[in-house]
Amino acid sequence: MHPQVLLLNGPNLNRLGQREPHIYGTTTLSDVENRVRAIVERHGLHLVSKQSNHEGDLVDILQEEAPDSVGAIINPGALAHYGYALRDAVVDAAIPVIEVHISNVHKREPFRHHLVLADVVVGQIVGLGIQGYLLAAEFLCAEWSRKSASKSF
Amino acid sequence: MHPQVLLLNGPNLNRLGQREPHIYGTTTLSDVENRVRAIVERHGLHLVSKQSNHEGDLVDILQEEAPDSVGAIINPGALAHYGYALRDAVVDAAIPVIEVHISNVHKREPFRHHLVLADVVVGQIVGLGIQGYLLAAEFLCAEWSRKSASKSF
Amino acid sequence: MHPQVLLLNGPNLNRLGQREPHIYGTTTLSDVENRVRAIVERHGLHLVSKQSNHEGDLVDILQEEAPDSVGAIINPGALAHYGYALRDAVVDAAIPVIEVHISNVHKREPFRHHLVLADVVVGQIVGLGIQGYLLAAEFLCAEWSRKSASKSF
Amino acid sequence: MHPQVLLLNGPNLNRLGQREPHIYGTTTLSDVENRVRAIVERHGLHLVSKQSNHEGDLVDILQEEAPDSVGAIINPGALAHYGYALRDAVVDAAIPVIEVHISNVHKREPFRHHLVLADVVVGQIVGLGIQGYLLAAEFLCAEWSRKSASKSF
Amino acid sequence: MHPQVLLLNGPNLNRLGQREPHIYGTTTLSDVENRVRAIVERHGLHLVSKQSNHEGDLVDILQEEAPDSVGAIINPGALAHYGYALRDAVVDAAIPVIEVHISNVHKREPFRHHLVLADVVVGQIVGLGIQGYLLAAEFLCAEWSRKSASKSF
Amino acid sequence: MHPQVLLLNGPNLNRLGQREPHIYGTTTLSDVENRVRAIVERHGLHLVSKQSNHEGDLVDILQEEAPDSVGAIINPGALAHYGYALRDAVVDAAIPVIEVHISNVHKREPFRHHLVLADVVVGQIVGLGIQGYLLAAEFLCAEWSRKSASKSF
Amino acid sequence: MHPQVLLLNGPNLNRLGQREPHIYGTTTLSDVENRVRAIVERHGLHLVSKQSNHEGDLVDILQEEAPDSVGAIINPGALAHYGYALRDAVVDAAIPVIEVHISNVHKREPFRHHLVLADVVVGQIVGLGIQGYLLAAEFLCAEWSRKSASKSF
Amino acid sequence: MHPQVLLLNGPNLNRLGQREPHIYGTTTLSDVENRVRAIVERHGLHLVSKQSNHEGDLVDILQEEAPDSVGAIINPGALAHYGYALRDAVVDAAIPVIEVHISNVHKREPFRHHLVLADVVVGQIVGLGIQGYLLAAEFLCAEWSRKSASKSF
Amino acid sequence: MHPQVLLLNGPNLNRLGQREPHIYGTTTLSDVENRVRAIVERHGLHLVSKQSNHEGDLVDILQEEAPDSVGAIINPGALAHYGYALRDAVVDAAIPVIEVHISNVHKREPFRHHLVLADVVVGQIVGLGIQGYLLAAEFLCAEWSRKSASKSF
Amino acid sequence: MHPQVLLLNGPNLNRLGQREPHIYGTTTLSDVENRVRAIVERHGLHLVSKQSNHEGDLVDILQEEAPDSVGAIINPGALAHYGYALRDAVVDAAIPVIEVHISNVHKREPFRHHLVLADVVVGQIVGLGIQGYLLAAEFLCAEWSRKSASKSF
Amino acid sequence: MHPQVLLLNGPNLNRLGQREPHIYGTTTLSDVENRVRAIVERHGLHLVSKQSNHEGDLVDILQEEAPDSVGAIINPGALAHYGYALRDAVVDAAIPVIEVHISNVHKREPFRHHLVLADVVVGQIVGLGIQGYLLAAEFLCAEWSRKSASKSF
Amino acid sequence: MHPQVLLLNGPNLNRLGQREPHIYGTTTLSDVENRVRAIVERHGLHLVSKQSNHEGDLVDILQEEAPDSVGAIINPGALAHYGYALRDAVVDAAIPVIEVHISNVHKREPFRHHLVLADVVVGQIVGLGIQGYLLAAEFLCAEWSRKSASKSF
Repeated sequence: MHPQVLLLNGPNLNRLGQREPHIYGTTTLSDVENRVRAIVERHGLHLVSKQSNHEGDLVDILQEEAPDSVGAIINPGALAHYGYALRDAVVDAAIPVIEVHISNVHKREPFRHHLVLADVVVGQIVGLGIQGYLLAAEFLCAEWSRKSASKSF
Repeated sequence: MHPQVLLLNGPNLNRLGQREPHIYGTTTLSDVENRVRAIVERHGLHLVSKQSNHEGDLVDILQEEAPDSVGAIINPGALAHYGYALRDAVVDAAIPVIEVHISNVHKREPFRHHLVLADVVVGQIVGLGIQGYLLAAEFLCAEWSRKSASKSF
Repeated sequence: MHPQVLLLNGPNLNRLGQREPHIYGTTTLSDVENRVRAIVERHGLHLVSKQSNHEGDLVDILQEEAPDSVGAIINPGALAHYGYALRDAVVDAAIPVIEVHISNVHKREPFRHHLVLADVVVGQIVGLGIQGYLLAAEFLCAEWSRKSASKSF
Repeated sequence: MHPQVLLLNGPNLNRLGQREPHIYGTTTLSDVENRVRAIVERHGLHLVSKQSNHEGDLVDILQEEAPDSVGAIINPGALAHYGYALRDAVVDAAIPVIEVHISNVHKREPFRHHLVLADVVVGQIVGLGIQGYLLAAEFLCAEWSRKSASKSF
Repeated sequence: MHPQVLLLNGPNLNRLGQREPHIYGTTTLSDVENRVRAIVERHGLHLVSKQSNHEGDLVDILQEEAPDSVGAIINPGALAHYGYALRDAVVDAAIPVIEVHISNVHKREPFRHHLVLADVVVGQIVGLGIQGYLLAAEFLCAEWSRKSASKSF
Repeated sequence: MHPQVLLLNGPNLNRLGQREPHIYGTTTLSDVENRVRAIVERHGLHLVSKQSNHEGDLVDILQEEAPDSVGAIINPGALAHYGYALRDAVVDAAIPVIEVHISNVHKREPFRHHLVLADVVVGQIVGLGIQGYLLAAEFLCAEWSRKSASKSF
Repeated sequence: MHPQVLLLNGPNLNRLGQREPHIYGTTTLSDVENRVRAIVERHGLHLVSKQSNHEGDLVDILQEEAPDSVGAIINPGALAHYGYALRDAVVDAAIPVIEVHISNVHKREPFRHHLVLADVVVGQIVGLGIQGYLLAAEFLCAEWSRKSASKSF
Repeated sequence: MHPQVLLLNGPNLNRLGQREPHIYGTTTLSDVENRVRAIVERHGLHLVSKQSNHEGDLVDILQEEAPDSVGAIINPGALAHYGYALRDAVVDAAIPVIEVHISNVHKREPFRHHLVLADVVVGQIVGLGIQGYLLAAEFLCAEWSRKSASKSF
Repeated sequence: MHPQVLLLNGPNLNRLGQREPHIYGTTTLSDVENRVRAIVERHGLHLVSKQSNHEGDLVDILQEEAPDSVGAIINPGALAHYGYALRDAVVDAAIPVIEVHISNVHKREPFRHHLVLADVVVGQIVGLGIQGYLLAAEFLCAEWSRKSASKSF
Repeated sequence: MHPQVLLLNGPNLNRLGQREPHIYGTTTLSDVENRVRAIVERHGLHLVSKQSNHEGDLVDILQEEAPDSVGAIINPGALAHYGYALRDAVVDAAIPVIEVHISNVHKREPFRHHLVLADVVVGQIVGLGIQGYLLAAEFLCAEWSRKSASKSF
Repeated sequence: MHPQVLLLNGPNLNRLGQREPHIYGTTTLSDVENRVRAIVERHGLHLVSKQSNHEGDLVDILQEEAPDSVGAIINPGALAHYGYALRDAVVDAAIPVIEVHISNVHKREPFRHHLVLADVVVGQIVGLGIQGYLLAAEFLCAEWSRKSASKSF
Repeated sequence: MHPQVLLLNGPNLNRLGQREPHIYGTTTLSDVENRVRAIVERHGLHLVSKQSNHEGDLVDILQEEAPDSVGAIINPGALAHYGYALRDAVVDAAIPVIEVHISNVHKREPFRHHLVLADVVVGQIVGLGIQGYLLAAEFLCAEWSRKSASKSF
């Protein structure tokens, strides 16, 4: 079976596309999943995508899926600002994680400037809309390809 | 079908009436629901009442019920102080929400003075006991009546 | 003589109705007084209503009127954020006080999030417009009726 | 009648000229008023000048005089650092206000660095002695002339 | 005429003796004045005693009485924590001022630990009940006697 | 039936033994449960042990089990730093609770120095590895024995 | 034997009189002791006076002397700002303690504005020079006389 | 002439490739420029790349090049944390800017967590090594293509 | 040769007139220079005007020009908030400096409320648009005239 | 000779048993020493117990006794909150140290929430009364036995 | 007799040379004393060297030795961060004091960045190992020589 | 060619000797350079000395000169408080750097207490006047001699 990439979306991201479409457009979470899947599969990988409004679910999923994943793309939604249990799960997962935020959180309320996962992930892509997910997927796949290639020698 | 009002109670509010009855009296959450329902129905509206100890559930419920509701009364319990995911759901719901606290949170521990939903709701009723729920219901129904009346011309 | 309820409004609230009527409507402080008086008198009580732009006046009034009042509704205006002398007078008054704010202070400048009377009043009604005064009056009168009834046995 | 400019001085500014004359010179508040009046009248305007040690008086005056004034020069004295009721009155006045401080408040105690009116006035002139009043008068009159001229076409 | 000592009491101190007599006893502000007067007159001085709930009045009084006073005893009440205009008046008065607090403000709410007059008075007597006034009077009179004596040579 | 002791573990503690075994050893949560059970049963008590990654579950469990428990041992995991809903449930439970942390949280990231349950539990055992659970069990059982003995007279 | 009053001086106060005599005068700690002793003996009490530069000594002395003392006058010197062990000893002593500071600490460096004993003593006399010791002695003796008198009935 | 993309690197980034090569590899700033140029030219755009250790130079360059650029990729180096003049220039430039950081600044010293340009750029790519530049280039070019396409209809 | 006045403008102020002309109008820095020069020359003084986006240049200029200048008008742009080297140069210059800000910095982002030069200049004129430069010039020239006049006797 | 365990008690702990016996019971420090000694000797170890009100003594003792000790139990009393010299001595001692607090410091004054030794000891036992000492002794002895056993192979 | 230089070392510095010799080398405090003595005697001065783990001792020594010393070198150890009594003694000593820290305190824990003696000494030498003592001795002796020379004329 | 030592002075230090000579004396930067050169050459090393008012220049110089230098003496002037780009260059330079401040920055404005280079240099010499440069030179040369000697075996 193909190695997998995990796409994990937190609270309220299931509403993508329905929420203020004049602002965010009509791209739904399902569209995002399809576009990320296309990238991932192009690199011979498999996508597992989950969303939940429950921090506990996100921890459960990460514990379960991390051992089979070569990396993860996580948009923690508002949990980015207080989800320390999710943070602990990210550390425990021990796989490369890219944190994605659709909007530029630094332009918004002060509480959104405090990112509790930021120092335990590889890096962040912030404010680039749903392109952020795609760029993160490209990055993770490229890193995996590079590592795989170097291992095969 | 009648338009609905949503009554949403957060963590530990299911214990109302059993918890320190010498202080809070014997009014249970069920009693509160009945009294709010009476007000709401008197205005020709329908009450949907939910309680959960899970922030994720409250977000799920709000996402599901908001489109059918003319307004909501939310007592977020302790989530009032750190539930940013719930806050995002309130913003997304795009209906008038009144935040109710049974006790006067400003008389209690400092962490209870920080209210993370306060700037995304219409307003708060704080410290007026279970009367707070009833006054909030009166307010929401009156607003709805006023708006309905103005629309019918 | 009927027992009285005190309605006390702080700085700039005499301008209600003239100030940005496209936002606040044409309800004046006098209208508010009349509507609160109607509620209070319906419960067999009497309304004393005062407004001043001077913190000292509000303290004077509270000292003078509190002994004859069964409760008070106070909108301290900007003094809510620094009026510690008024706070001391509220404590000394030893009657139930409800703090009312017409606008949702938590949506406004940071200095308005700090409420120096909040922990010495019974509770607050915030952001519900002039309805806040009316709901406070309903609450105070109901409490008084309940207490009177229980005393009469 | 000529349109008026309001000159408003806060607590302790009535003592100008008597207070530490070796430092502040012998210019009294009355002298300041005369020099501001001269400027204002040169532009065909009328000066109303008031001083009070009471924040409430300053609010009362501003409420009363603002409707007839084309602008105001306010030296709030120590109220600059905590007079939120005066701030609300400035916002409500809806006329251009210039805040003047005789001394450079940034060279003095830390509490004087916090200016609560600063973001609701047009601007500040700080530390330029009593010249600050005169420059503010020149500015207000020039602005008024410019606007009047543009209106007359 | 005898030189005078000024006794100045701020907001809510007119209520002394009536306010929670089981705690503060039945000593009224009038009793305090009499006892301070007795001390002052024993030293051949005259007492002027004023109380107001208005910060502006306290500033007015201090401006008026300071030139004729050899010193002042000030209990600013809650203004101790935010009365910067009163502070400016104390500096301007240029006479020795002793700040008195009946209760130990450091045992009370955090806002009472911040004393805005404290660095412009000679010193404070805090928490010693109404004895604080009497000790302050003894101190001021003794200082005055000492200075008078040294001048007479 | 024997009275019970509740052992409650929060987010990510199900991973004990699998997570960085070179550091934490191969002791699993199941081993911990067995060792705590042995102590508890030696004192004639019964152990109920639950773990969840969901704060809501921990609140649900505590509400359900507290009435039948003589005490609880809680390792809240990361919720120790922001789980105010869990804190409210601990207060409501009204049984002695010992908070256990396997690692010394004071040696770790600053956010782990802030313990939101700490002032509503009996005490904490921090940094003593899984021995912390066993010492907490010994303490709870000894307290229970002592109280039972004193009651039987 | 006569009941005793304890006079306790902390670090660097043994230097009184030698330290900057142009500022502090030539009054030595020994002079202060003599003047306090005179007051105390006038009330039929006995003075025990100790000074040490060691916080531990001050704690030792307080533990030893408190049981035999009707009250204490403590000038903790710089320990006023960080001597929490001394603070604990003051609480344990369970006798009335007056804290004295010769200079007005609020006019000096910011670290001197933080007083760690202030909320566990009866009150403070600050900035009144060595008179502060004498006024404190008068207060303590008067309180003792008052209590003794009321007991004798 | 082709529209241009601006690549702007701040202090110390000229040292890329020479600085700790065991960590950062042997990719030099020149290599980065070539790889970004390849992407940009593939989209029919032209690359202008500048580096300076002077904030003033970066401001000069941005003022000069912005009018001819369809977007910019800026790695401000340490100026990210205090370069408010650069920030002002970014706002004035009025073109889409992507902020890139090679390392994950949130894993480093606290001063690096404060990003003064973050709220005036479109978004950030942080911690993804030199891939961050390439992903930023892909994003900018794609956005430009999308906008160009929509304009051509 | 005539004594000179120095007009010094910091980062991004060369863009005046081109930057958001619908807001700032079409007045360029060159226009400002001409209008300031007119005032200065009317008083028999000479204007030296410099602008740079480099803090180092501003320091160089101030060191070079201060000895020949009777005063300076400085708009430090964003350096007002962090340019401590410029601040040191202002102190060293030992000539009267007026700080000018075109916009009211107190209405803008919080970082703009912190003014690091404010306590080493004579005063500030803030928020009065380009009039601020002209009023500052009037002030400096008047002061110079006054001093020259008093010296000539 | 047997290896030793060090029991070190800081300021005011010599008063155990005499201090508020209705709260703390009649267990004295001597009782605690005997009970800890019994545990320690049961494991074939020897107890050295010292108490001092002087931070310097605690440092002296730790320097002297640490080389002969297999571990230490330290209740630093109030020095837990500011005893950085003691902290340095703990680091230098290089033996396992358990910090014990009889009361739950997190329920008390805010200054007691700051523990300056906490990150240089193995762990803390807080709020479990004098049982805390006994549990700490059990832990240290068990650790020592485990290490001794593993060394003997 | 020769004038003396005082070398004063605080808590834990008696352990120099024994403490982590692989890091600090085998230079003991005694070696440091000898090397400082050699420098001091080369300038015709005499060295008095004291170390104590007690802040009170350091104050005692400074009070006793300062009158006979031309200067002092003080390494306060951890007292650098909270020893306000020592600070007061340094001020009282009225001799030039150089503060020495062997390690670079700014590279260590945050509490070590706060230096409470720093503003009352002449200056600091930090992080230069035991060379710091020698450079301080050279400085003090050179200053003394320079002053002596200038006095002799 | 001889190995070199780099002497780097930041903003406003070119003014040494001309600036307030009654305070700083008539020693110029050129004198300092000569005296440092004398020390350096005595150890067989060569001095390169640069000064600039531009942070960018200091970074440029450090990048260029560090590879040829055995160490550096840096007086960053005001950049000590905000020059993070210079800090990055110091880290990159990878040579021993001694930070020198002529005045005792801890006696001056609060912003000067924050030293952003302090944790990336070997150490600091602060407040010892221009002797600080000479002592730093002695230290660097001695370290270099010691290392050279140990290498030659």
